[in-house]
Amino acid sequence: MEPAAVIEPGEIIFKIVIILFAAKVFGELAERIGQPPVLGELLAGVVLGGSLLGLIEQNSALILLAELGVIILLFEIGLESDLEEFLRVGSSALVVALLGIAGPFAAGYAAALAFGLSHTVAIYIGATLTATSVGITARTLTDLGQLRTPEAKIILGAAVIDDVLGLIILAIVVGLVETGVVDAWQIGKITLLAIGFLVGAIAIGIPVAPRVLSITKRLRTRGILTVSAFVFCLGLAYLAHELRLATIVGAFAAGLVLARTEDFAHIQERIRPVADIFVPIFFVMLGVSVDLSVFNPSNPESQTLLTLTGALIAIAITTKLVAGLGVLRRGLNRLVVGVGMIPRGEVGLIFASIGLAKNVITPGEYAAIVAVVIFTTFITPPFLKLSFRGGKRRIPAAE
Amino acid sequence: MEPAAVIEPGEIIFKIVIILFAAKVFGELAERIGQPPVLGELLAGVVLGGSLLGLIEQNSALILLAELGVIILLFEIGLESDLEEFLRVGSSALVVALLGIAGPFAAGYAAALAFGLSHTVAIYIGATLTATSVGITARTLTDLGQLRTPEAKIILGAAVIDDVLGLIILAIVVGLVETGVVDAWQIGKITLLAIGFLVGAIAIGIPVAPRVLSITKRLRTRGILTVSAFVFCLGLAYLAHELRLATIVGAFAAGLVLARTEDFAHIQERIRPVADIFVPIFFVMLGVSVDLSVFNPSNPESQTLLTLTGALIAIAITTKLVAGLGVLRRGLNRLVVGVGMIPRGEVGLIFASIGLAKNVITPGEYAAIVAVVIFTTFITPPFLKLSFRGGKRRIPAAE
Repeated sequence: MEPAAVIEPGEIIFKIVIILFAAKVFGELAERIGQPPVLGELLAGVVLGGSLLGLIEQNSALILLAELGVIILLFEIGLESDLEEFLRVGSSALVVALLGIAGPFAAGYAAALAFGLSHTVAIYIGATLTATSVGITARTLTDLGQLRTPEAKIILGAAVIDDVLGLIILAIVVGLVETGVVDAWQIGKITLLAIGFLVGAIAIGIPVAPRVLSITKRLRTRGILTVSAFVFCLGLAYLAHELRLATIVGAFAAGLVLARTEDFAHIQERIRPVADIFVPIFFVMLGVSVDLSVFNPSNPESQTLLTLTGALIAIAITTKLVAGLGVLRRGLNRLVVGVGMIPRGEVGLIFASIGLAKNVITPGEYAAIVAVVIFTTFITPPFLKLSFRGGKRRIPAAE
Repeated sequence: MEPAAVIEPGEIIFKIVIILFAAKVFGELAERIGQPPVLGELLAGVVLGGSLLGLIEQNSALILLAELGVIILLFEIGLESDLEEFLRVGSSALVVALLGIAGPFAAGYAAALAFGLSHTVAIYIGATLTATSVGITARTLTDLGQLRTPEAKIILGAAVIDDVLGLIILAIVVGLVETGVVDAWQIGKITLLAIGFLVGAIAIGIPVAPRVLSITKRLRTRGILTVSAFVFCLGLAYLAHELRLATIVGAFAAGLVLARTEDFAHIQERIRPVADIFVPIFFVMLGVSVDLSVFNPSNPESQTLLTLTGALIAIAITTKLVAGLGVLRRGLNRLVVGVGMIPRGEVGLIFASIGLAKNVITPGEYAAIVAVVIFTTFITPPFLKLSFRGGKRRIPAAE
């Protein structure tokens, strides 16, 4: 009876109600001040967590629901990523993406070493700084009515490349942590495994998935498409997990494969309500894991941590601005591209939460990374608005 | 770290994949032989559980997902129940429903006492035999193209009344078990509380819900309608739980309330994929809880249990056939009405699973009740087909 004692459904149901209610209230407030709802959900978690109200704690049942949430989130992101467009995006997007990964990784790694952190932790921190948040950027560009500008296309193309490369980097970093060995041979092996998994899943999945779906269409039970898509997503997530990659790498691959089937729109429509319920639980629980006391200024250790956080924020911003210079086409607003790459989001947070769960990074380092994500996300919408305005004045004058 | 050790997301994800896959395969096979998919899902659980393959065990995380499944199921049943139609159904349906509750309860109670079981267990077993499964009956009538006959309307009306009264009986029985006292005062108090909760939730909910929904429409965050409906459902489930009723009573009330709002169709559409994923987990886990070894014929205790099971099946069938005689209008096929009321389903299984979880009934008694549900469900489709055929020949001759 011991496991049953850990989860009392009545109590968990109450906590789910609190989490979803707070997620929507804070998400709405974030939207009203021009910020993405995910920021509100993160802050809702910080407020509900042990540092402030203490209503929600790290609990195995809530962690499971959050894990389902992030798997469904990456499945949705995969469903929304157009593989062909991803292959078609210009050389500018590729250069921006590669610069935007190399810069933050190298600078974050160097800074962490300078703060006396270990090799593994430094690699981890460098990796968390790489991935641009597609969602936040795309949303802000839509709100600004700038989604069809060439700058926006470069930003989104680069962000998608960032996401895919970010997942490969995550797979490598998780693999290094799992095996505990950091050498060129190990890194090479895991890189090949991660790329092999993604390429293999796509190469096998794209011809096979339509046939499996056409079989399910002949079945009569209710909800067969929803359940088939969900089982496929969880199945690849489990396979990735067994290969010592992250579950979300599998979920993303499942999304990419199903995005190419003719049932794509139906699958997306049916997964959406499930995502609506579970994804906010993931972001709120990320906020719950933040221990604000690590930032207590009266503690000397906290002062070091605050300095590290400041340094990482500065690195996160400047390296992506530099990446914006990678735009090859002339006459474009490189500032806009750089600013558009600044927000870190889901992937960075997922990195950090896995690192915390696997005890690679400390609660302090976790809080520092969450602070980087919150800060970079927070400044992007107003900064992007300003840089578009500046750009519009400059470009006509230059031409 | 102890709770985290109980739930390893990778392992749970694997088990969810197995459960959903088996649910769909067995559900489809059930459909192909003219049986409701829920029967296939139950059998899938028996096959996956400890008695046969041993792939899935009672695990706190899976129990939580199953609990969410049954809450969503009752929410959906509530959403589909038309309160007005329920008040409009003729006196025949009411008489059939009341006979169909009183008969199985009294006979089941007496039989359990005759088998030497305690007062509380006998009440529990009597209660599990009362509720007709609306879903199974409605589905079979649809398949037979008989949904618009007067007999079908009486069956469905009576089944809806059965469901509501069944939930009140469940609330009373759970209340008795929770307080541990069985006296007229206690039964009266819990009956008033259960009826008060349902009536109160509906009386307050119906005028208030449209206003709350109109506020959410002014909000901008994604999935606000889905999350609001889900939070309302879980919130009432939790309230019912706190009042020592069952969570599903609250979920059913939430569904009844939202069924009356203008957003009803949107809510139903968005809850469906969530139900498609979680409801099968509930039924499979019910099957997993069945310990087939209690029926091992070489064990003397099992022989008593097999006799009890046989007696309960006979009672379950004959008492509902008798209830069919409660049809007041002349010229109707009373056999069809009686047969249509035979299948026990969700509500009986929910009763049994709560009884097992609260240690009111033994694994043997639980298995006996599941056997009654499986048997009554299994015989209904062919039996109903036959009795309609008999009726068609008789009625023209009589007129």
